[in-house]
Amino acid sequence: MRGFYIGRFQPYHNGHHQMVKEIATEVDELVLGIGSAGDSHSTRNPFTAGERIMMVAKSVVDFDITTYAVPIEDLERNSVWVSHVQSMSPAFDVAYSNNPLVIQLFKEAGVEVRQSPMFNRGVLQGTELRNRMMNGEEWRSLVPEPVVGVIDEIGGIERIQRVSDTDSDGRDSDGGPDPE
Amino acid sequence: MRGFYIGRFQPYHNGHHQMVKEIATEVDELVLGIGSAGDSHSTRNPFTAGERIMMVAKSVVDFDITTYAVPIEDLERNSVWVSHVQSMSPAFDVAYSNNPLVIQLFKEAGVEVRQSPMFNRGVLQGTELRNRMMNGEEWRSLVPEPVVGVIDEIGGIERIQRVSDTDSDGRDSDGGPDPE
Amino acid sequence: MRGFYIGRFQPYHNGHHQMVKEIATEVDELVLGIGSAGDSHSTRNPFTAGERIMMVAKSVVDFDITTYAVPIEDLERNSVWVSHVQSMSPAFDVAYSNNPLVIQLFKEAGVEVRQSPMFNRGVLQGTELRNRMMNGEEWRSLVPEPVVGVIDEIGGIERIQRVSDTDSDGRDSDGGPDPE
Amino acid sequence: MRGFYIGRFQPYHNGHHQMVKEIATEVDELVLGIGSAGDSHSTRNPFTAGERIMMVAKSVVDFDITTYAVPIEDLERNSVWVSHVQSMSPAFDVAYSNNPLVIQLFKEAGVEVRQSPMFNRGVLQGTELRNRMMNGEEWRSLVPEPVVGVIDEIGGIERIQRVSDTDSDGRDSDGGPDPE
Amino acid sequence: MRGFYIGRFQPYHNGHHQMVKEIATEVDELVLGIGSAGDSHSTRNPFTAGERIMMVAKSVVDFDITTYAVPIEDLERNSVWVSHVQSMSPAFDVAYSNNPLVIQLFKEAGVEVRQSPMFNRGVLQGTELRNRMMNGEEWRSLVPEPVVGVIDEIGGIERIQRVSDTDSDGRDSDGGPDPE
Amino acid sequence: MRGFYIGRFQPYHNGHHQMVKEIATEVDELVLGIGSAGDSHSTRNPFTAGERIMMVAKSVVDFDITTYAVPIEDLERNSVWVSHVQSMSPAFDVAYSNNPLVIQLFKEAGVEVRQSPMFNRGVLQGTELRNRMMNGEEWRSLVPEPVVGVIDEIGGIERIQRVSDTDSDGRDSDGGPDPE
Repeated sequence: MRGFYIGRFQPYHNGHHQMVKEIATEVDELVLGIGSAGDSHSTRNPFTAGERIMMVAKSVVDFDITTYAVPIEDLERNSVWVSHVQSMSPAFDVAYSNNPLVIQLFKEAGVEVRQSPMFNRGVLQGTELRNRMMNGEEWRSLVPEPVVGVIDEIGGIERIQRVSDTDSDGRDSDGGPDPE
Repeated sequence: MRGFYIGRFQPYHNGHHQMVKEIATEVDELVLGIGSAGDSHSTRNPFTAGERIMMVAKSVVDFDITTYAVPIEDLERNSVWVSHVQSMSPAFDVAYSNNPLVIQLFKEAGVEVRQSPMFNRGVLQGTELRNRMMNGEEWRSLVPEPVVGVIDEIGGIERIQRVSDTDSDGRDSDGGPDPE
Repeated sequence: MRGFYIGRFQPYHNGHHQMVKEIATEVDELVLGIGSAGDSHSTRNPFTAGERIMMVAKSVVDFDITTYAVPIEDLERNSVWVSHVQSMSPAFDVAYSNNPLVIQLFKEAGVEVRQSPMFNRGVLQGTELRNRMMNGEEWRSLVPEPVVGVIDEIGGIERIQRVSDTDSDGRDSDGGPDPE
Repeated sequence: MRGFYIGRFQPYHNGHHQMVKEIATEVDELVLGIGSAGDSHSTRNPFTAGERIMMVAKSVVDFDITTYAVPIEDLERNSVWVSHVQSMSPAFDVAYSNNPLVIQLFKEAGVEVRQSPMFNRGVLQGTELRNRMMNGEEWRSLVPEPVVGVIDEIGGIERIQRVSDTDSDGRDSDGGPDPE
Repeated sequence: MRGFYIGRFQPYHNGHHQMVKEIATEVDELVLGIGSAGDSHSTRNPFTAGERIMMVAKSVVDFDITTYAVPIEDLERNSVWVSHVQSMSPAFDVAYSNNPLVIQLFKEAGVEVRQSPMFNRGVLQGTELRNRMMNGEEWRSLVPEPVVGVIDEIGGIERIQRVSDTDSDGRDSDGGPDPE
Repeated sequence: MRGFYIGRFQPYHNGHHQMVKEIATEVDELVLGIGSAGDSHSTRNPFTAGERIMMVAKSVVDFDITTYAVPIEDLERNSVWVSHVQSMSPAFDVAYSNNPLVIQLFKEAGVEVRQSPMFNRGVLQGTELRNRMMNGEEWRSLVPEPVVGVIDEIGGIERIQRVSDTDSDGRDSDGGPDPE
């Protein structure tokens, strides 16, 4: 029995970690899909896929179940998204998500989806976390211990603060440098 | 004499249908270009190109002129858009549009464009229609009969309501699943 | 009952036409998927999607079944090809093909595929036809009447002869102009 | 000693020109990277890369240093942007920018970046300039003489006014025609 | 000390496995980059990225070092390949490769590369292995035990035999279905 | 009167240089389009666009006419190639080419094309030149003086010799690293 749980993990935090713990009681193996894998260095997506793999892998290393951290690049085409995910991931029996679009796409493709009100907490914490990082506020208590190490090692706080300067100018750093 | 009329047709509605009727008095054949053909499962673009082909083809079947429903994928590059359209469509003599960008691009390429104030009504009805679908309000009287059948058969209302849940979270489902 | 039959139709010829006739005895509606829709002006793919839509639509106009000519652009990714086709085409119940890769992909996706030894004749005739065009030999008797008209109108023979000059230099015109 | 200075140059104006003059005192050769080179015919990016090359090249022709105007297409992926720029541009020793994201990316790649408060003036003038063009106000005094000639020759004012009609409808013309 | 070793792993075989064993004596952690991750269902690339992750992960599970199996999609642009790899992979100190192009690209980017004549054996065995699979000959003794399980479970032999039928027709199944 | 002459310039050599001299007698300004601008580090395309801009710009600096060296990235779609070139290049009145595909595309778009038997010499010399470089034979006498400087400075001979090792293995380095 293998499960699939997708997130952008920008960064991987305690909300995600709690969900993985719950899912771990239902499956033998778990694939953690790292969404928008090609995006980085933006306010919304500060960390690279490689950095996020580190965060996830170091955090789940002591769990009893086997885990896979798999980057999933965006194809920008909802209609083939499920096939794309299925080709990039080890085969899975059930998907875990609270995202309505993800749920809809999996359901139309005949994949079982499980959701829970608890899963929403992660969504809220992601934006909150990045805002704290940008504003120089406390964020370390909201992520698993190994994530602190990864972010510090790569100078992640300095990075997100720099790129948020870009955004405050009214422009979106998700699409690559776009100087006036 | 062949005309070209492009729309996203999300969905094909009475405003579009009225325009096609008017154009039909001026041309022998009409190409209906289905724009943003690769987009689907979003608030703004709920239906796939295949579903929209069905809506259009079933609705125009009794017109006296020959019609072609041709999906046009976005190339994200205005400067080659006219060439792209011309390669995907049967050759046409005149384009019908009220969209200023479309008009500008065709004019720069030396293609005759015809417009009319009436054409604008379709724009307004498209957003209105999707809002009604999302809110569970009456929409069936605003589209040709065959469109109702297509949307019901694919579970279109449930789909647009689900993906609009995603959007209300402040995120855009046009670019593919992007879970927090 | 709707069927799907995909080909590059470079050009649409008597072999394709015979197949469509056979399929027409089994289905009520038939989608003709025009593969590699973005390719044109090469030895292997001389005609644009728009030109091929014309060839197909004019040729099948007198058949009793309803037909749809739908361009399918390449995504260069086998694993999502079936989903891509399904999003671009009106929904279909059965696919017709003799191409082993197409058969394999549809089967893995759980789509019924029907094949027949007869279908292979089209493959042979496509290459043969283009060779005849390039060499200035007789080709008109191998295609439906309306296809002759389309090719003559667009100067198709001159085009394929010109681009085959490029290829004889050892280069592939499929990927766009690539002058030394 | 060769410098690199990137801008979208929509259009190239006196703010840019002043910066180039200052940079010219520090380097022997200067590469002017024309960002978002594939974008055109939108409110934010009205002019094509070719038109912008003309503006830049005609304006800097009398400077003592050697200059290169090099279009840089967006790759939509911040993590490879520096490598992309380096492959498209003649090799450079120092980059000039006041854009925080550009600075961050060059720094992570170990490229020296120089900035100055003065450089910001260009940012402000770009938006202001396009607004004046859209509103039919005075803009000619804000750009070098040759830029006026380029814009007049291509009918640039009519173009930006037309495409801004599109945008006022709440839609973004950056991604190509997207008619309702 | 973390190493990076890239291969297409179509499939992961004893030659690869021997290399990983050797590299494991030199590093603490090893990233196994799964190249051409988007390709599958072709003679040269029969297996999906997800299937290859399974092969690799199941085979290296008993090694003493920490390993990461990371799919790397092709960007089709040599000049940004190193940056792409670096963004997708956990940070590494040394790359292992015997591929001259890979070596050249890493060297130009200032990344240490280690090679060994032994590494070549994998290259030879990959083609040989796939040929054996296509011809129905013995292949199970050339791959680690868990790889046999993965290939059997997905019907891998039937798949490669089917898609090689396509190729024998002179066409390349790497670029997606391309029926005549 | 402005002309457009496109080549891959891998590298820019005496054959190209002779052509530019001839064209210079017919036009006031000349755009040198650097084709396949995104390709590099392969046997067929060893040099980056930036390196080729340097070769061209340094070589034509003493000509009396104004020249522009403009990289043109491949769009892989013949039908929009002319529009793409026109958007990337300063406007031109006449195109110079001996490539049959290029001639065909410009003619279909209504652009004047001039050709001459002399122009072919460049084609032959390009392949010959790269073969000499790969084999360690004399090549310096076949290129303008500044090109020797550029190639030596970037270690171009070592690069092409390394990547040709890759190719001798039967694989194509044009599409990015693809290790077995």
